[in-house]
Amino acid sequence: MSSIFDQGLARNPANFASLSPLSLLRRVERVYPDLPAVIHGRQRYSWRETARRCRQLASALARRGVARGDTVAVMAPNTPAIFEAHFGVPMTGAVLNALNIRLDPNREILVIDVADPEGPGGDCIGSIEYDAFIAEGDPHHPIELPHDEWDAIALNYTSGTTGNPKGVVYHHRGAYLNAMSNIIAWQMPNHPVYLWTLPMFHCNGWCFPWTLAALGGTSVCLRSVSAESIFSAIADHGITHFCGAPIVLNLLVNANDSERREFKHSVHVMTAAAPPPPSVLSAMENDGFKMTHVYGLTETYGPAVICAWQPAWDPLPESERADIKSRQGVPYPMLEDVQILDPKDMAPVPDDAGTIGEAMFKGNIVMKGYLKNSRATTEAFAGGWFHSGDLGVMHPDQYIQLKDRSKDIIISGGENISSIEVEDALYRHPDVLEAAVVAKPDRHWGETPCAFVSLKDGADISAEDIITFCRDHLAHYKAPKHVVFGALPKTSTGKIQKFKLREQAEKL
Amino acid sequence: MSSIFDQGLARNPANFASLSPLSLLRRVERVYPDLPAVIHGRQRYSWRETARRCRQLASALARRGVARGDTVAVMAPNTPAIFEAHFGVPMTGAVLNALNIRLDPNREILVIDVADPEGPGGDCIGSIEYDAFIAEGDPHHPIELPHDEWDAIALNYTSGTTGNPKGVVYHHRGAYLNAMSNIIAWQMPNHPVYLWTLPMFHCNGWCFPWTLAALGGTSVCLRSVSAESIFSAIADHGITHFCGAPIVLNLLVNANDSERREFKHSVHVMTAAAPPPPSVLSAMENDGFKMTHVYGLTETYGPAVICAWQPAWDPLPESERADIKSRQGVPYPMLEDVQILDPKDMAPVPDDAGTIGEAMFKGNIVMKGYLKNSRATTEAFAGGWFHSGDLGVMHPDQYIQLKDRSKDIIISGGENISSIEVEDALYRHPDVLEAAVVAKPDRHWGETPCAFVSLKDGADISAEDIITFCRDHLAHYKAPKHVVFGALPKTSTGKIQKFKLREQAEKL
Repeated sequence: MSSIFDQGLARNPANFASLSPLSLLRRVERVYPDLPAVIHGRQRYSWRETARRCRQLASALARRGVARGDTVAVMAPNTPAIFEAHFGVPMTGAVLNALNIRLDPNREILVIDVADPEGPGGDCIGSIEYDAFIAEGDPHHPIELPHDEWDAIALNYTSGTTGNPKGVVYHHRGAYLNAMSNIIAWQMPNHPVYLWTLPMFHCNGWCFPWTLAALGGTSVCLRSVSAESIFSAIADHGITHFCGAPIVLNLLVNANDSERREFKHSVHVMTAAAPPPPSVLSAMENDGFKMTHVYGLTETYGPAVICAWQPAWDPLPESERADIKSRQGVPYPMLEDVQILDPKDMAPVPDDAGTIGEAMFKGNIVMKGYLKNSRATTEAFAGGWFHSGDLGVMHPDQYIQLKDRSKDIIISGGENISSIEVEDALYRHPDVLEAAVVAKPDRHWGETPCAFVSLKDGADISAEDIITFCRDHLAHYKAPKHVVFGALPKTSTGKIQKFKLREQAEKL
Repeated sequence: MSSIFDQGLARNPANFASLSPLSLLRRVERVYPDLPAVIHGRQRYSWRETARRCRQLASALARRGVARGDTVAVMAPNTPAIFEAHFGVPMTGAVLNALNIRLDPNREILVIDVADPEGPGGDCIGSIEYDAFIAEGDPHHPIELPHDEWDAIALNYTSGTTGNPKGVVYHHRGAYLNAMSNIIAWQMPNHPVYLWTLPMFHCNGWCFPWTLAALGGTSVCLRSVSAESIFSAIADHGITHFCGAPIVLNLLVNANDSERREFKHSVHVMTAAAPPPPSVLSAMENDGFKMTHVYGLTETYGPAVICAWQPAWDPLPESERADIKSRQGVPYPMLEDVQILDPKDMAPVPDDAGTIGEAMFKGNIVMKGYLKNSRATTEAFAGGWFHSGDLGVMHPDQYIQLKDRSKDIIISGGENISSIEVEDALYRHPDVLEAAVVAKPDRHWGETPCAFVSLKDGADISAEDIITFCRDHLAHYKAPKHVVFGALPKTSTGKIQKFKLREQAEKL
């Protein structure tokens, strides 16, 4: 139905542009050309240099025939090359496929080596080195936006916590909107100094390469994540912001004095992935970090839900604040909605903080779909919501809290046991470094909780000590029946691989 | 050309939502229901209450038959009613037409009175009072987004500095994006306390009603703008942010001690409209205000260009900083581009800070077009850029600086004289309160500068004193040949009406 407000008022080049992160590169090149963009060891690039290198990368790729609909894969740790790929690849119309560095490339394709002077060395397997490759390119190659903002910008394979990876497709519109959402959600000022603890190959670094262009910020690369390297970067580069899984936080709170460095400025930390144990959140705040808890999936461009802080929570005791902060929360600024629904009838569960349902998402920062997998795409979007596979509850204040992945819930004697709740109890034990709980098949109970625990250096406790501790802190039926000590298997992004533990538990 | 990244990956209700400021109301109602939304004298509404009132307004309007494509006009000073109209009217699909309160409504339509207890009283001309009207509405009326984000959300008549108003149409997409741009441009944190010095009927208050919903901020309404009322609000309500034309700044820097109140917190001020004289910017910073200079037009949803601050400017002397800050600057975070082009061939002028061209805009925060005025729309968008009618130069650092409206430039003996440059000189005179310079027709020179000046209380100087002062500070040919003392004619938004002065100058 057309109205007078539509007549003669169509889109034109003056009043419409595709939403795309590429606009952000063009703007930062104009506005902040002399500010530092990327620091990697002795390499330093200003935004003028970074924009030139991105233009050259796009030009060199285009000259090799790369065009709209093609895929350019990048397998690199956090280095200037992968940062530049986030702009240079989409500038050709192609799709960036940032690969986990632990994969094994084995195809007949053009391979460009990144000979990183900060790296460990090693053989080159490609036909040309990255700097030589981009030197082929025109430094004045234009930054052109896609004709359609729905065009794909990135392809990200979900990490292997399930052992069944799918190719998640992002579009320019969503990447742009979540890059801007990060700023508003985290209340980021101009010119943050951002430390790359999170791999850029993981959900495009939660869209932060683009966020940093929007703010004229500095990326400090980090090849290897350790407590010492993080504290050094904070002290030496004045890091103001970084993102990290709870595993990274764990490294920091358990660092010894020789690994620590003093800092007096505010360091803002965004954490996600597994729900962070309240005890770890408390310890981080005590060490001077300002914690923000977010939640999302590869399918939601990284963070899409935030535990938005309420001024009324400021005066609460620290442990209560940490408990509240461990909830996942409310929609990110540009996510339309997140609800806890019953997947059977898609009805919202009661907001009683107890009834379990599935976390479902809706909005512009939900993926385009799964590549060449229409069955998985249709299932994921059934009923007009994205089904996360994560189980949780709705609090009366409309904050969601995850209780488990649907496959991680333990059903013992007909009762649901949240593996997260048992893990939170384990993390409160002073000798526990890391913990994960999975279901172990049981003839009598159906399933029982089985705990995998790694201990801090010098700790000497028994499985019985752990079980007793849990029975003191949980309803008895929730305490683990078995405890296994040892290092936990993880993905390269630091997520614990529960499917491997589940296999182990079956064989016990 | 379809690629594998398009196949089966279309929009669906889970991964696409129209960009609309209405989403922001839904989110703030969920996330910050108990925080204060609007304060107006003794009236106070939380975000829960404001959202409920907006739902009721939408419902009551819909029950009277208001639907997509209709126009709902609001004529109100800064009050809760006009704030609510920014959400309640578009929720029906209708277009908000916020009218200047100095217009005279004279049509056979349904009129709803806003009986403001903070107002001066007066006769009601309508058939129902606002609170009674919204009481008809359903407090649970759904917040639905438009099917198409290109749908009109607002109609704003350009203010009468030209005497030839046009109806500027905004769409949901642009209103949403500029509301978010305000946050990023001004580095706004959550929960600002915003003072409404700027009328909401002026470019929808530069999109700030929607910005405040995005941040869970508080609107403090101000019916009448005076130095005393602004200082009182800062001290009593802890105002953190406000916007104002240079005329408002002038009120503040010239306030006497009895009008001033002390404040210790940071107060951020965004100023636009006429380019603010550097002397006024300096005086504001000395009074403890943090100044941000933006530039835009009704056609660009309010601010669309910002004098983005460079860290390298921090150590400069204060007067140099004020000079720099009086430049208009670079694109707003979500504007695609602003350039100084030669309208004859649409080529960029040299970035030499001297060659004059026309400021032209491009991007998503440029209007949909002019209502029922296809000729003006086509002219405004000629060549793929929005033609602002403002003349300016491009600095080597790619910041634009306005020199004049195209019709305000004075051509004397073949030389262009910027009326703004002459006004800046006049503002440096300690006795000058306000100044405006226009062209006066002259048989010999073609045109000569004519100054209209209002003096501070108790000042006693002559036209010759003013002319001598200008000749000491400007090239002689730029000094005014005539000086007229008296109050300056202004629009209700505080813009000086130069077309009236031009008429006066012709008759001198």
